[in-house]
Order: sequence, then structure tokens, then C-alpha cells
Amino acid sequence: MTHVIGVDLGGTKTAAGVVSSSGEVLASETIPTLNRAGGEAILDATAALISGLVERAADAGVTVSGVGVGSAGVIDAAAGTVVSATDAILGWAGTNLAAGLSARVGLPVRAVNDVHAHAIGEAWLGAAAGSSSSLMVAFGTGVGGSFVLGCAPVLGHRFVGGHVGHFASPYATFEGVPLPCVCGSAGHVEAIASGPAIHESYLRFGGSAVDAVDTRGVFALASSSTPDGGAAATASRAAALRAIDLGAGAAGQAVGGLINILDPETVVISGGLADAGGLWWEPMEAALRQELLAPLAQVPVARATLGNTAAIVGAAKLVL
Amino acid sequence: MTHVIGVDLGGTKTAAGVVSSSGEVLASETIPTLNRAGGEAILDATAALISGLVERAADAGVTVSGVGVGSAGVIDAAAGTVVSATDAILGWAGTNLAAGLSARVGLPVRAVNDVHAHAIGEAWLGAAAGSSSSLMVAFGTGVGGSFVLGCAPVLGHRFVGGHVGHFASPYATFEGVPLPCVCGSAGHVEAIASGPAIHESYLRFGGSAVDAVDTRGVFALASSSTPDGGAAATASRAAALRAIDLGAGAAGQAVGGLINILDPETVVISGGLADAGGLWWEPMEAALRQELLAPLAQVPVARATLGNTAAIVGAAKLVL
Repeated sequence: MTHVIGVDLGGTKTAAGVVSSSGEVLASETIPTLNRAGGEAILDATAALISGLVERAADAGVTVSGVGVGSAGVIDAAAGTVVSATDAILGWAGTNLAAGLSARVGLPVRAVNDVHAHAIGEAWLGAAAGSSSSLMVAFGTGVGGSFVLGCAPVLGHRFVGGHVGHFASPYATFEGVPLPCVCGSAGHVEAIASGPAIHESYLRFGGSAVDAVDTRGVFALASSSTPDGGAAATASRAAALRAIDLGAGAAGQAVGGLINILDPETVVISGGLADAGGLWWEPMEAALRQELLAPLAQVPVARATLGNTAAIVGAAKLVL
Repeated sequence: MTHVIGVDLGGTKTAAGVVSSSGEVLASETIPTLNRAGGEAILDATAALISGLVERAADAGVTVSGVGVGSAGVIDAAAGTVVSATDAILGWAGTNLAAGLSARVGLPVRAVNDVHAHAIGEAWLGAAAGSSSSLMVAFGTGVGGSFVLGCAPVLGHRFVGGHVGHFASPYATFEGVPLPCVCGSAGHVEAIASGPAIHESYLRFGGSAVDAVDTRGVFALASSSTPDGGAAATASRAAALRAIDLGAGAAGQAVGGLINILDPETVVISGGLADAGGLWWEPMEAALRQELLAPLAQVPVARATLGNTAAIVGAAKLVL
């Protein structure tokens, strides 16, 4: 049996695991991503993480034959380079990710964007296992996705494919003005359906920043059946329910439209919001189903099942 | 050199041509589609059309080795059957298109949806020739499209892929209510950006049905610099300009979002509206460019070049 290392390199932490050709994760470790230190320092730290796992594997009699990396940023999967990245990882753009790691660890390295790695993982072993095609959409800090044909994500000509948070949403307006999007445009799905967007909606709807300091707080407030603190707390709770409903509706409508466009065998919903319970899932799925063309009415829509290991096993699949 | 026959079977007419393996159309003919007569009658008429072309080719010393069909409706390209179709062609759903034609003409037959055939044609010989991937979107009586990877369109698991007119558009509302869409849902791109939708917008904006009886009339009115008839005609012309601007903006915004999602090498805009001139094209392209993520800013957006032969040569490519 072949063994490789899968790496999930995100803006705040980097996780890696030894993965067998049947998808079993034998050992894993996580380190903080040195997101202020520049590309070479990140490569050094990631190489050390990988080398530690290679040694642990060797101690157990397991030989590692390659490394797959799912990384934040736009990744040229052919060249193994970081085309562009946000300021979440300073100095990451332009890094020779695959070649730099390969030189450090002495193993072949392939790389892809982390959302695509995540989707490969779910398509291989998770909620879309056995499907000939799948669409994964993740709703969390941002909104991203990947359309996987077979086990190969559609990366796009410039490796930008999968930016499913950046198309227009009728929900993404307030008082007639499109909400600004992190991409620089406005009125996009991500501007209303991401986790932070739900907190922003809550504040716009008159929710108090004291009652809910972040998106998690909005959900806690919405789930509490008897808020303390009288009329103000009741208003905050109403704002929380409205913000979640709006974000979920926008999410479902967006995914429904994507299904009409792509007709995947299976749809996988991932990210923190997918794990937030029925309060988000139910209006999301209702809005999704309402969009669908008649022949697509029975499309399965499943919650991602692999959690944090999805991108590790998906990245590993690149070299298996 | 191999020669095959490509067939473009639409709701009102069926065109076919003898196509060489280099894409040259040697001879072509068009008949009305027997859209009230049922599937078998359509197969009979189409087979007669094909057989006539086979004979003409034989007279010129050319042997035809197969038939490719691009047909209206949802086409199961693996089985060669019509999965579903609108009432534009009564009794078309359920027809064994490929097998029925093959039995009649004695040649191997493959079939695909006509919009996909159109896109294959443009990807092979037209505006996207030489591109490794392309997105074609056609704006006409409806809005449809096809994402072509290599020369193979992404058909979807249920052969429904490419319904790019059926996702939500912020433009597709009037007085706060989403506009009804022919698919049964509401607020979709097609409900505001199709040709008929532009005429409907014109009427909603106070344009007179006498001044413009259809979409062509709306464009004629908008292009006329000095409308006759005083204030009413001036109001109609203003409504025409506004309706075109709205439809074109919705079209461009939709295509821009699709580019962010799919990242095709080349984008091809087709259909009657793409041929309507700068009055539509300019606001369409402006809205499109405004949506794009930074790394996609230079994506080429071209007008389709093959006209009515696109689907014929694209269908022919299925068997070449």
C-alpha cells in the first residue's frame, strides 16, 4: 500500500497527515501558519512538519512516497506556484510552493487550492463518495466551492475556478444599495451569505454588538428560547433570526442556481454554517429546492462528512 | 477525409449539412420541424433530409460515415434519447432520437442538446477555436449556455447542465416582486435578459405596443434618433432604451458571475441579442467586466462567429 502526506495550509493553521492509498489517516499534526513571515519561512515550517511525519511513519515501517498540498490562495496546480493570495498570508503570492517544498523534503510535491482539495476529499471519501460528479460549496469565513468531475476539480484556465461566492445575489443589498464584497465588487453571494456577513446583517437589523459579538454569538442568540434583558434583547434575537434566515436563503438560492448550471450528481454543503444546525440548514435547503429546474428536483444535497480531514485526504489524493 | 452529416433540430426548423473532418460544410438543407406531428413523424422527416444529403454527397463522390444531431430539449447524450422537451415540439420527449434515426438512415447517430452542439461548433471552428476551455452563452428567445472543456461540453449528470438562464438575477424584479420565469421559478436571468423579456420590460416601462410589437421593434425604436409622433413616441423610445440597458446589464452581470465560477479561457456570446449591435453589447460587456475577480480581468469576450452553421458543425463533431 502506498502512503503519502496530505497538507492543508490555511491562513491561520497548517495541518498535515500521513494518508494511505485507501484514505486512512495514520498520523497527523497541526502547526500555526507563519502568516506574517513570508513564503520562504512558511515553506521551512511546512517542510519541518512534513519531515517530522515522514520520520514518524518510518518508525512505524511506513515509507512516504509523495506530498500533496491544499493551500489558501490561487494555486497554479500545473506549476505548483502561488498565483495570488490575500493578506491573510503575507508574502504568499509568488511562492514556488511545490518546487520549494520538494527541494526541502526530497519528495515529489503537487499543490492545489485548499477548497479544491477539500472537495476532492469529500468526492473521494466523504459525502460525494461514489458520485461521478459533485459540487461542493463551503459557507464559512468566505464562500467558496469546487465542481468535481470524476475525482478532478474544474480548476479553470487561470486556476481561479470555484469562486462561487462571487456572483450576484438578489439578497446582497440593503436599502437598495448592493453590499460591498471583499473582492472589490458588490452585491455578491459572499457579501450576504458568509459567516461574517450574517453578523453584519444582524448589526444592520438593529442587533446589539453586546448581545452577539460575532457570528457564533448570532447563532447562540437565535437558538436561545428566552433571552434575558427585556425588549432590547428580544430585538437582538429577532435581528439574529432575520440575519440567519437571510444568509441561509441567499446561500440556498446561490447553490440552487449553480445546480441548474452544472447538474452535479451530488451536492455537498460544507463550512462552519453547514454545521450550525437546522436554523441555517432548513431555510438554505428550502431556498435551494425552490430554484431547481424540474428534472433536478431530486438532486441529493448532503452535509460534508469529513470535517477538517477533507483537505488533508483530498491533497493526498493528488499524489496517490 | 471523413465526411459526416450534422443536424440542427430546433423548434421551428431543422437544418442539416455535409461536414468534412476539417469542418467544411459541403452542402446543406433546411426543412420546417414538424413540431405538432410527434416524435416519429419528426424522425421520418429528418431521416429524409439526411438521406437526401447522403445521396447528394454520393453523387459528388463523397461517402458519409455518420450523423451527429444537436436537438432542442434535454438530450441524454449517452442513450441518444430525448429526456424532456417543451411544448415547442409536441411529443418530442421520450423519442429514441439516435436509435430511431440510425434505423432509418443506416448510419451511426449520436445526439446532444442543440445549445451544446452550438458551443462545440464555436469551440472547434468559431470564436473559441484553439481555446482549451470556453463558456458560450446565448441570449435570444431564451438564455442558454455551455461550458466546453477541450471539445467536450459539460453535459451534467442528468444532461441538464448549461441552463445558465436559470439562476437568480438582482435585475429580474419589478416593484420588488421577482419576475416569473418560464421554468416555473421566478427572478431568473432569463426572465429579464432574454429577447422576449426585453420587450416585456419595454411594455412595463410604459412603451407602446404599437410603437414596438416585438423585441426587434424595441431595438429599431431605440436606434431611431428622431422618433415621429411627439411625446408618446419619445416616451416609447425612452422605455426601449431603458429595457435594452436593463436586459444587457443583467446579461453581462450573469456572464461575469459565471466567469468567476468557471474561469474559461474564452467567453463566447451568441444569440440574436449578441448580433443586435453596440446598444446591447456595450452595457452587457461593461456589466460583465464589473463582476470579474482581478485575475480574470483580461478574459477575452467574443461574439460568436459561425452563425447558424455552429450547431451543424458542432453536431457533426460528435461523430468525427
